[in-house]
Amino acid sequence: MAEDDFQTWWQSASIPPTHRALQDSVIPSLLQSISEIGKALRRSHHVSLAGTANAFGDDQLNVDVHAEKLVRDSLAGCPAVVTASSEEDPVERAVRHDGGGSGAGTDEKYTVAFDPLDGSSIVAPNWSVGTIIGIWEGASALSQLPSRKQVAAILGVYGPRTTAVVAVRVPGMEPICFEVGLGDDDDDDGGGGGVQDCRVIRASVRLSRPPFKTRYFAPANLRAAADDARYMHLVTHYIQNGYTLRYSGGLVPDVVHALAKGHGVYLSPVTAQSKAKLRKLFELFPTALIIESAGGKAIDPADGSDILSHAVGECGETGGLVCGNSDDVDYAKREFGL
Amino acid sequence: MAEDDFQTWWQSASIPPTHRALQDSVIPSLLQSISEIGKALRRSHHVSLAGTANAFGDDQLNVDVHAEKLVRDSLAGCPAVVTASSEEDPVERAVRHDGGGSGAGTDEKYTVAFDPLDGSSIVAPNWSVGTIIGIWEGASALSQLPSRKQVAAILGVYGPRTTAVVAVRVPGMEPICFEVGLGDDDDDDGGGGGVQDCRVIRASVRLSRPPFKTRYFAPANLRAAADDARYMHLVTHYIQNGYTLRYSGGLVPDVVHALAKGHGVYLSPVTAQSKAKLRKLFELFPTALIIESAGGKAIDPADGSDILSHAVGECGETGGLVCGNSDDVDYAKREFGL
Repeated sequence: MAEDDFQTWWQSASIPPTHRALQDSVIPSLLQSISEIGKALRRSHHVSLAGTANAFGDDQLNVDVHAEKLVRDSLAGCPAVVTASSEEDPVERAVRHDGGGSGAGTDEKYTVAFDPLDGSSIVAPNWSVGTIIGIWEGASALSQLPSRKQVAAILGVYGPRTTAVVAVRVPGMEPICFEVGLGDDDDDDGGGGGVQDCRVIRASVRLSRPPFKTRYFAPANLRAAADDARYMHLVTHYIQNGYTLRYSGGLVPDVVHALAKGHGVYLSPVTAQSKAKLRKLFELFPTALIIESAGGKAIDPADGSDILSHAVGECGETGGLVCGNSDDVDYAKREFGL
Repeated sequence: MAEDDFQTWWQSASIPPTHRALQDSVIPSLLQSISEIGKALRRSHHVSLAGTANAFGDDQLNVDVHAEKLVRDSLAGCPAVVTASSEEDPVERAVRHDGGGSGAGTDEKYTVAFDPLDGSSIVAPNWSVGTIIGIWEGASALSQLPSRKQVAAILGVYGPRTTAVVAVRVPGMEPICFEVGLGDDDDDDGGGGGVQDCRVIRASVRLSRPPFKTRYFAPANLRAAADDARYMHLVTHYIQNGYTLRYSGGLVPDVVHALAKGHGVYLSPVTAQSKAKLRKLFELFPTALIIESAGGKAIDPADGSDILSHAVGECGETGGLVCGNSDDVDYAKREFGL
């Protein structure tokens, strides 16, 4: 067994016993589904997506639908997950469980809200894409305060490797944020709800404190800067102050870039001309939990409030996002006049 | 055999018989090395690279060195490749061949110049990275006119999938540019110099002509805009005109993004304060051949000349780059006053 074997390390994580199913079943099962999506993507050379040129119509795969199914399949083995909704099917529905899941009879109840494949516009050029998952305490994520009820989040990254950043923040523990690498070996016995060939890459993912060797910025929805002098001014500020640009257009790789480097500010403002596109339940809330658990901030550029401070009433609500290192988020907040 | 099987398709490509070893051995072998690098990267969760946080010092891999070795190993099986140089070992050296390569006794002579793993700064966040390869007619790439003597180029992309864009432009044929997907199956007999589990994704990769549904820009070395009003003005032009920003910071994914979308302009200007970083032999020349073969332009922003119009005298020469769709390259050229 490797020194960095996830299962061993994870069993020693200080998750309160009130959340045993989260630790033993839900998070390992979801990590396994991310591993499976990575394998499925690797075989999907002929992807059917808007904006791609594809000469082989008969052989097309809808990778979004496949990813959706793989996450749903993993939830079927988690009796503690009672409700799920997703970007592909944005309605909260009861989860139907197969008989095989261990841990039946748990008192814990969770709701999972996920975006199975974020970044479809960059699938054709073979850029990194991701899966976004939020895990909520209780039988619904609607009308629940995200900062209290969303207890865990996962960002899966499909790039040269398959990796995932995980945050857990349940009452009675210090928040944790860590990164794992998911391999291809299937021969160890993952068991019910387990994850196979998973290694701990970084046991603690943290955004750094100043001074920074290199500062990064990721300006999403940059066309909004044509209408919004504050945004244009902010972008000019980053250029004049020597920030390094990294912007893939995929929320997951863009946020994970900041986490890997220890610095980054991601901006997706909303203007009258450019509508909000990020879904709060499936994209913003899990991302915000990851960023906060890594020591950063995630705010709504409409009013400066924390992303996690307002509940959603329905699955489809959208908004803007400014997130990353606290001092840079605070600077942007002031520049937006908030 | 799948309809899109590369070997079958490739044998019907109209490469002149004067370049049979290029077709039968050199390009398939190099594609196989890209497949191998993709597999190696997938296992390299603990990468030793500047700027990464890595908790497991004993288990580090230097992925650049590994990629270098895989390309060199593939050349050892290609008797027609007599000389090679690379970003990791930037000196032209004779290639030592193993006994196993078929096609010994060929009259063809090629030189290969390559960057085994471009984009090391984005390996840690698990963003797509690439391999860049130029193939030259003759026993040296130095003091040779690139537009005539560099007869083929390959951009390998390591993302959720492993893909490659290939251009071939030898005298007596129309230039071709195509994209392949490289899978994991090893069980078909690749034979000497062959490539296993390779599929044609797009038989013809072309940059589109106006009008464009979406225009993309990738501004590298953006800090140069702080010193260069022309560059800042150009970036403002893209924002004001609704161009979509996509900039990963990896030359291969940034160029391949334009090729996948049919539109894109990539800019890496050089100013007094920001030195040229792109190596002509290992990065600029192969990229320019790919872009030109797809119907685009690649120019030197220092003087507006075509990248491929000037030879290099040594392996280490560097320069700037503006490339992509012709009308956008022409616009940038005018803005830079060239």
